[in-house]
Amino acid sequence: MTATVLGVGTSFFGKQPDTHPNELIWTAVSEALADADRPRIDAVYVGTVFGAPGVAQRALHHLGLTGIPIITVENACASGTTAFHEAVQMVELGRFDHVLAVGVEKMTDNFAGAIHPEPTDPEGRSGLALPSLYAMAATRYQSEFGLTDADLAMVAVKNHGHAVANERAQHRTPHTVEEVLASRMIADPLTLLQCCPIADGAAAAVIGRWTAGRTGVKVRSSVLRSGGLWDHRSDHVWGFELVRDTADDAYAAAGIDPGEVDVIECHDAFTIGEIVTTEALGLADVGKGASLLHDGHTALGGPQPVNPSGGLLSRGHPLGATGLAQIAEIVWQLRGTAGARQSPSARLGLVETMGGGVAGIDGNACVVAVLEAP
Amino acid sequence: MTATVLGVGTSFFGKQPDTHPNELIWTAVSEALADADRPRIDAVYVGTVFGAPGVAQRALHHLGLTGIPIITVENACASGTTAFHEAVQMVELGRFDHVLAVGVEKMTDNFAGAIHPEPTDPEGRSGLALPSLYAMAATRYQSEFGLTDADLAMVAVKNHGHAVANERAQHRTPHTVEEVLASRMIADPLTLLQCCPIADGAAAAVIGRWTAGRTGVKVRSSVLRSGGLWDHRSDHVWGFELVRDTADDAYAAAGIDPGEVDVIECHDAFTIGEIVTTEALGLADVGKGASLLHDGHTALGGPQPVNPSGGLLSRGHPLGATGLAQIAEIVWQLRGTAGARQSPSARLGLVETMGGGVAGIDGNACVVAVLEAP
Repeated sequence: MTATVLGVGTSFFGKQPDTHPNELIWTAVSEALADADRPRIDAVYVGTVFGAPGVAQRALHHLGLTGIPIITVENACASGTTAFHEAVQMVELGRFDHVLAVGVEKMTDNFAGAIHPEPTDPEGRSGLALPSLYAMAATRYQSEFGLTDADLAMVAVKNHGHAVANERAQHRTPHTVEEVLASRMIADPLTLLQCCPIADGAAAAVIGRWTAGRTGVKVRSSVLRSGGLWDHRSDHVWGFELVRDTADDAYAAAGIDPGEVDVIECHDAFTIGEIVTTEALGLADVGKGASLLHDGHTALGGPQPVNPSGGLLSRGHPLGATGLAQIAEIVWQLRGTAGARQSPSARLGLVETMGGGVAGIDGNACVVAVLEAP
Repeated sequence: MTATVLGVGTSFFGKQPDTHPNELIWTAVSEALADADRPRIDAVYVGTVFGAPGVAQRALHHLGLTGIPIITVENACASGTTAFHEAVQMVELGRFDHVLAVGVEKMTDNFAGAIHPEPTDPEGRSGLALPSLYAMAATRYQSEFGLTDADLAMVAVKNHGHAVANERAQHRTPHTVEEVLASRMIADPLTLLQCCPIADGAAAAVIGRWTAGRTGVKVRSSVLRSGGLWDHRSDHVWGFELVRDTADDAYAAAGIDPGEVDVIECHDAFTIGEIVTTEALGLADVGKGASLLHDGHTALGGPQPVNPSGGLLSRGHPLGATGLAQIAEIVWQLRGTAGARQSPSARLGLVETMGGGVAGIDGNACVVAVLEAP
């Protein structure tokens, strides 16, 4: 059975310390349910990383969503797309008619102090948190392929520019390469404007069965893989292989080539992430990702815009909500309702989220989904 | 397609502050994989409440379980049975041939300080943590049905007695009613020996497709429901309705009556929990649960032993691991390999886990599964 996205919704993304998680969830879910013409929901999958137990049940029972299976899933930054993936599978397998996928994160409440590295964990012992891990990938990539700091900054310039037209985004100020490079250093070579900000937010999608004449956005494929051991002698930087393998499976399942994708939301938690990911997705050869920025290939107006929403760098990155916000953006793009940031005549869209990356592993999870316009 | 439990395994349960979560997982998963004759695992569901992101991926990649979907699920105390339920569904729906369900919790690392009540949450504001919630259910029940403190203590006496024969249990000391009542008061009328202890542990099960002649324990049904709004004017105490409704669905799906069940593992996080749960499961009329203790009905040697493992009260309650430890116990009972705590000629077994219970809700989730001997 083919699954279809019948409705999507999101809250505003940004620091909202005085907003209860219930409100974030209500905003996103209410919009998604209305958008889907309010079907009866048979089950709910909830993506969150640091949400308290019951964070979703607490909010959803006020919306009348009780007595059904509600399952919280976690896969680090890919938690939201994991919820989407499980919802899609349950519809594809014929288990449920309508499944709600929700993602939520209140990072201003929970993030500071939420990560306690274990004393026996090499990652914790070495202080190798994710910004450092991405920075090491960046410096290796720079050394091997001659990527400059200014090339890296161009990712931030593009995505911050896209977000100007996204009224739900956290940061809507355009920046120049000089401004990006002059912002505070976080983990050399990654400056502040090259790192996604702490955000609160929620996003949701209603998945149902596709029937002829139905107007929803069709799910051509959705693939979830967990990362294998990463070897420092690998030909590729950390993270590349997991994204490549997941994307290869998703392209094969959808029966398409990378060149056929019209619009993409991918995991640009740090600028180097987008460069490596666009290569892993097959948009450019390894080592050539920056060319997509220099010739405008992945900018709005180019043939394959990447992160038209502003991406994690500008929309913000409330961990569990991110994957479903990416889904929402691609659904709007494929429906032609993305307003000032609409990519013309988009027929196929792709969402990619990379989650985690613990000591020695490529990543906890990667999800790649291919969606098709109604 | 019918699902079958091909193998189970657990770690020792108890306070193990110096044992890394990896070791707990390796012990449980290695035993389960060997028990199942090492099939190729297609996907993994992991139940944990306070486990760090990646807690399972980190351990599993050392066992060669990489590149496949690994999904962490959370449903408060029912997280382990939620992982089991999802694994069973994926096999029943024909999505995967062999799915591993794992539960893990390192409570000596993470529990103290892990629960931060939100300022806007009535439960947090009132200090109504779970012991208090169960204590209120106990006092209402005592007031309505004349249950005595000694009746309550009999649950602890029975389950601590059962655990003497369970070499994996945290507490293996038998206790008298007097000892139970004389232990430190936690939340009146619940004394220390009537509350489950803080524990570390892991448990695992391998689920596969049932085929004629296969020797696994057959999954007759598995049902997951989330709690609805609880009304203080209800005829029943908190928690009863969710367990009853979930059990009714599970009995109907299995095509059996409560009287046909031969052995049960249920959620005795606090003594009152087992009394209310045995009524909700249909073993006794409402208000008559204590009679099951007085006549030995639910003791080992009785017609329907409840918590032969010692239950949460004595085996210990590492949240995410508990549900799969319950599954493991029922599998051993149905195979006839439970040793000194074996219930004779058990053909049908039942597992029930209740998760959470946030402000105003019956429970985050309840899972009831019915298993059948090979």
